[in-house]
Amino acid sequence: MMNPQQTIHAFVGAFIDELVRAGVRHVCICPGSRSTPLAMVCAAQPGLRVWMHVDERSAGFFALGMARVLGEPVALVCTSGTAAANFLPAVVEAYYSRVPLIVLTADRPHELRDVGANQTMDQVRLYGTHVKWFVDMPLPEATSTMLRYARTCASRAAALARTAPAGPVHLNFPLREPLVPLPGPLPDAAQAAPSAWTGRADGEPYTAVAAGERTLPGEAVKELAAELGAARRGVIVCGPDTPADAAGPIVNLAWRLGWPVLADPLSGLRAVPASEGGRAADEGHTLLDHPVIDAYDVFLRDRRAVEALVPEVILRFGAFPVSKPLLLYLERWAEKRQIVVDPGAQWRDPLLAAGRMVYADPAGLCRALLELDLDLHRELDIALDRPALGGPETSGAGGARRSWLGAWQALNRATRERLVEQVEALSEPFEGRVFHELAALLPAGTVLYVGNSMPIRDMDAFFPCIGRPVRVLGNRGTSGIDGVVSSALGAAAAVDGPVVLVLGDLSFYHDLNGLLAAKLHRLNVTIVVINNDGGGIFSFLPQAAHPEHFETLFGTPLGLDFRPAVEMYGGRFARASDWDAFRHAVGQAVVTPGLDVIEVVTQRERNWALHRQVYDAVLQGLGSVLDAAVSGSEVPRS
Amino acid sequence: MMNPQQTIHAFVGAFIDELVRAGVRHVCICPGSRSTPLAMVCAAQPGLRVWMHVDERSAGFFALGMARVLGEPVALVCTSGTAAANFLPAVVEAYYSRVPLIVLTADRPHELRDVGANQTMDQVRLYGTHVKWFVDMPLPEATSTMLRYARTCASRAAALARTAPAGPVHLNFPLREPLVPLPGPLPDAAQAAPSAWTGRADGEPYTAVAAGERTLPGEAVKELAAELGAARRGVIVCGPDTPADAAGPIVNLAWRLGWPVLADPLSGLRAVPASEGGRAADEGHTLLDHPVIDAYDVFLRDRRAVEALVPEVILRFGAFPVSKPLLLYLERWAEKRQIVVDPGAQWRDPLLAAGRMVYADPAGLCRALLELDLDLHRELDIALDRPALGGPETSGAGGARRSWLGAWQALNRATRERLVEQVEALSEPFEGRVFHELAALLPAGTVLYVGNSMPIRDMDAFFPCIGRPVRVLGNRGTSGIDGVVSSALGAAAAVDGPVVLVLGDLSFYHDLNGLLAAKLHRLNVTIVVINNDGGGIFSFLPQAAHPEHFETLFGTPLGLDFRPAVEMYGGRFARASDWDAFRHAVGQAVVTPGLDVIEVVTQRERNWALHRQVYDAVLQGLGSVLDAAVSGSEVPRS
Repeated sequence: MMNPQQTIHAFVGAFIDELVRAGVRHVCICPGSRSTPLAMVCAAQPGLRVWMHVDERSAGFFALGMARVLGEPVALVCTSGTAAANFLPAVVEAYYSRVPLIVLTADRPHELRDVGANQTMDQVRLYGTHVKWFVDMPLPEATSTMLRYARTCASRAAALARTAPAGPVHLNFPLREPLVPLPGPLPDAAQAAPSAWTGRADGEPYTAVAAGERTLPGEAVKELAAELGAARRGVIVCGPDTPADAAGPIVNLAWRLGWPVLADPLSGLRAVPASEGGRAADEGHTLLDHPVIDAYDVFLRDRRAVEALVPEVILRFGAFPVSKPLLLYLERWAEKRQIVVDPGAQWRDPLLAAGRMVYADPAGLCRALLELDLDLHRELDIALDRPALGGPETSGAGGARRSWLGAWQALNRATRERLVEQVEALSEPFEGRVFHELAALLPAGTVLYVGNSMPIRDMDAFFPCIGRPVRVLGNRGTSGIDGVVSSALGAAAAVDGPVVLVLGDLSFYHDLNGLLAAKLHRLNVTIVVINNDGGGIFSFLPQAAHPEHFETLFGTPLGLDFRPAVEMYGGRFARASDWDAFRHAVGQAVVTPGLDVIEVVTQRERNWALHRQVYDAVLQGLGSVLDAAVSGSEVPRS
Repeated sequence: MMNPQQTIHAFVGAFIDELVRAGVRHVCICPGSRSTPLAMVCAAQPGLRVWMHVDERSAGFFALGMARVLGEPVALVCTSGTAAANFLPAVVEAYYSRVPLIVLTADRPHELRDVGANQTMDQVRLYGTHVKWFVDMPLPEATSTMLRYARTCASRAAALARTAPAGPVHLNFPLREPLVPLPGPLPDAAQAAPSAWTGRADGEPYTAVAAGERTLPGEAVKELAAELGAARRGVIVCGPDTPADAAGPIVNLAWRLGWPVLADPLSGLRAVPASEGGRAADEGHTLLDHPVIDAYDVFLRDRRAVEALVPEVILRFGAFPVSKPLLLYLERWAEKRQIVVDPGAQWRDPLLAAGRMVYADPAGLCRALLELDLDLHRELDIALDRPALGGPETSGAGGARRSWLGAWQALNRATRERLVEQVEALSEPFEGRVFHELAALLPAGTVLYVGNSMPIRDMDAFFPCIGRPVRVLGNRGTSGIDGVVSSALGAAAAVDGPVVLVLGDLSFYHDLNGLLAAKLHRLNVTIVVINNDGGGIFSFLPQAAHPEHFETLFGTPLGLDFRPAVEMYGGRFARASDWDAFRHAVGQAVVTPGLDVIEVVTQRERNWALHRQVYDAVLQGLGSVLDAAVSGSEVPRS
């Protein structure tokens, strides 16, 4: 018969041990009393790295950033009460951006619930519809059934968190005093003894979960191939969180179809040529043929481009893209055939335009389509009766298709060239230029975390495809300005290469607490704060025309000098006075250990005017390319 | 026919106008795009003061502190997405500590929900069981029915938020673009025109809600009076959030019964003599007779005191008290008759000991009991056959009762005297002394906000009853260390007198963002940070005996010098090197406008040892008083 402390040790110990067997390697823990068994067992568990945090909100986003960059579940532990409530923003973001988190909250036992006991709240289904699975765990028991249950729950939690659509799960642990488990190794009964676990090798999971990907039946793939092949002018749209393993297959499919890939900055496709993405080049195409379009956010601002580039089919992967011009383009052509591929069997179609919803693993689907070579080419031949759409590449097989892609490529190239010209001609601080500069500066292997609101939108316009492997991450599940610092620091804790975060001053202020992790855990990160002293995005919205309450309600200038706060957390702070200084500061920071914050000071109104100026100049300069595209296209009657 | 902008203006305008008619005077707004109609209408509404915040978590607690100190509903506005999730900690605290909040979240319209639209999450019942009422509002319509509906919802929200048990309500507003309402006055249709609203004067609510308090029927009051009157040795326990208007009646009832009032530091009874509390003195009793016991947290640490002070009846008001020794005392005597009075018809009985649950307004109930003069005295006469319990006051009517109270008073007085001696003999930094000093320092009219974990516990022991009106507030709904800075600043925004906040370094760090409000809104507040570089409370818990992971998991030293952060927010920072310096700094700060942060640096282990030392010395010195109490009491067999 075990005493209560042994029982708690055995039960919680079996659970945590099983999490590790299921592949969980990191746990973020916030201090608390009720959570003592969870915390102490985690700390004693070999194979589990503990990251302490005091602010649970920051802890949640730190775990999110870590899980996002690793693509594997990270555990979170906190005590009872509002501690658990502080996880909600990160849980919500994880749910919508499909990041695996395993949230473990300590709770009072039943006899202390809803009877006015201290630090007690209703934690049952606390995160509502924003977790994939909730379990109100039983009180610790050390019977063999209940130890099997503990291990089963851990296996299942890890498996569910990582199975598409990946996301957060929540297990709530009622715990009774005494809360301090006995020190030392896991009690025998809780161990994975071979006698009890027939056929399981040491360290093997109690239940190993093999999760297959969704795969369309062959007939459905053929049907889809026929539909794609029949379309002369298709567009592939890759939004945020397009699965990394799909990048290469998508590019290859695009190349085969002769369609452009409109690649969101968070799609992972703007820095393709890692493994599979190179295949196009291997097959003899030049980099100029690269079907990835990265400047659509700019040239689709021109109504003529939108009207000229009439798609027959739109094929979407990932979440809905960031770009408003692209949204308007897709809305303009919402009656065209739209196919949405979702490995998570959810419904990412805010325009309500999907004619075909395909629940399948994107990489597997693209490969299956590519294997249907002949079918595609046969369809392609039929398509060749169309006159070529004005564009540079019209020769060779699939001319019509190539010329459609060529029109996009020409527009893209011309836009990018003019953007670069415009940006480089501006010597004054311009927010978009931050991304232009970073594209040249970031070393191979960098993780670039991008804040919401203006930074991600500027990145969309000003950060082109680059030849180096740079991973771009952002929190677009719910696009909050909260928790961004912690997310980036979580990523920094999990990877070896440089991590650079770009965000605005409101977002930086919102998660200033997150900087503590850089100090406590000695993380290496470079943070670029674009400080326009308030909410810059509102200058682009209709409320800017209502001066009466604008600054108060929307501008919200904080008037903060962040230097002292950064230094309080042991960081170095530099204000980049010009672009030379910026390049120098970033160049230094990415190779220097520790926390560096580089501030770029801009003015909101001027920034809005410069955006207008740059876009106008670029779009005017595009006239001839656009005219060629327009002349070669058919404008349907609406 | 109105256009969409007029419609949105009319509908949202009618709702906000009605909130103001229902008595809402303050709104905390966080910037956002989807919430533009709510924000712009609030800003244009006469009679509504707008408080802008960028961090929604801080905004939530700011509103909470404001609503707590005012005892009236405060509105909160944010945009869609994780912004709303950041309100959860404050909503939870408001729910459990019964503070009226009206949470207004902007949401996407139905066609953009759960289809992958940007910045969209499931906001329906987002706060789960932690709000009293949730409404997923309709899209704005300006028909007369829907304008009546908007006004009805506003009336009802304000009424529900403030009706016992007060608490948060949540209204979720789906809003479609265009989001900018037309400027100018409310459209005519949305106005409260006399023609449409027969009998309603200008500015009168559309529906004026008159909410009665719960009142026991006369028979039930008599029955309760008989039970109370029959008990010779009763104890009244007033926990946090005892209704302010009940303080006087409770003290008078205690006096009449000859029972002690064990007054939690957050009960409002330690600084009684405002209005009704003075009645005991008016009736010829001296302050020494005052039945309020303020040192129970110390003398109930002595097992002999617990065994000697055998209650027959325990009468509880408010939430469950902070003190662990008091909890153990109540647990020791859990089989005795326990009566819990709850105006909110909930269940505040964590010991599961209530024999009688009384759902009635505490002030009204006490007054009704006091009106039954003769009955009480008749019961009292019967009770006089008991020998007097050793204590100073044994003469006069109700001797037995008076001597029971006398024993408590004697113990209390002796404890307090010895505590003062011990504390004043310590020249080194001792956390408990902060409250000893503040009790002497705080001017009449001060609001003292106290942080959770150690500060509120030290206050319990070291802050005695004082003769000046000082309001003591704390977040004991769920006792989180989060949001405390913002709560105090919210209180500071709502009152004229000095506001002093005492909290620990982890709690200060957790809500550093809250300081921005002091800067933006030029608030006057004095913050005393007890900086022991980590979680001091854990040194008092069993995990302190497990050194292996203690500092990492529980001590969590941050190593932060807060000065730069305080200065960044425009505050003055002082580190009090000794108690003279502390007194000087606090004395200056409370009369100086702006933000002052005064740090008291202590050491966690030493602080634990000093607590032990002080308590041991006090309890030893109490021997003779305790012996007298023990000799006069009956120790029941268990």
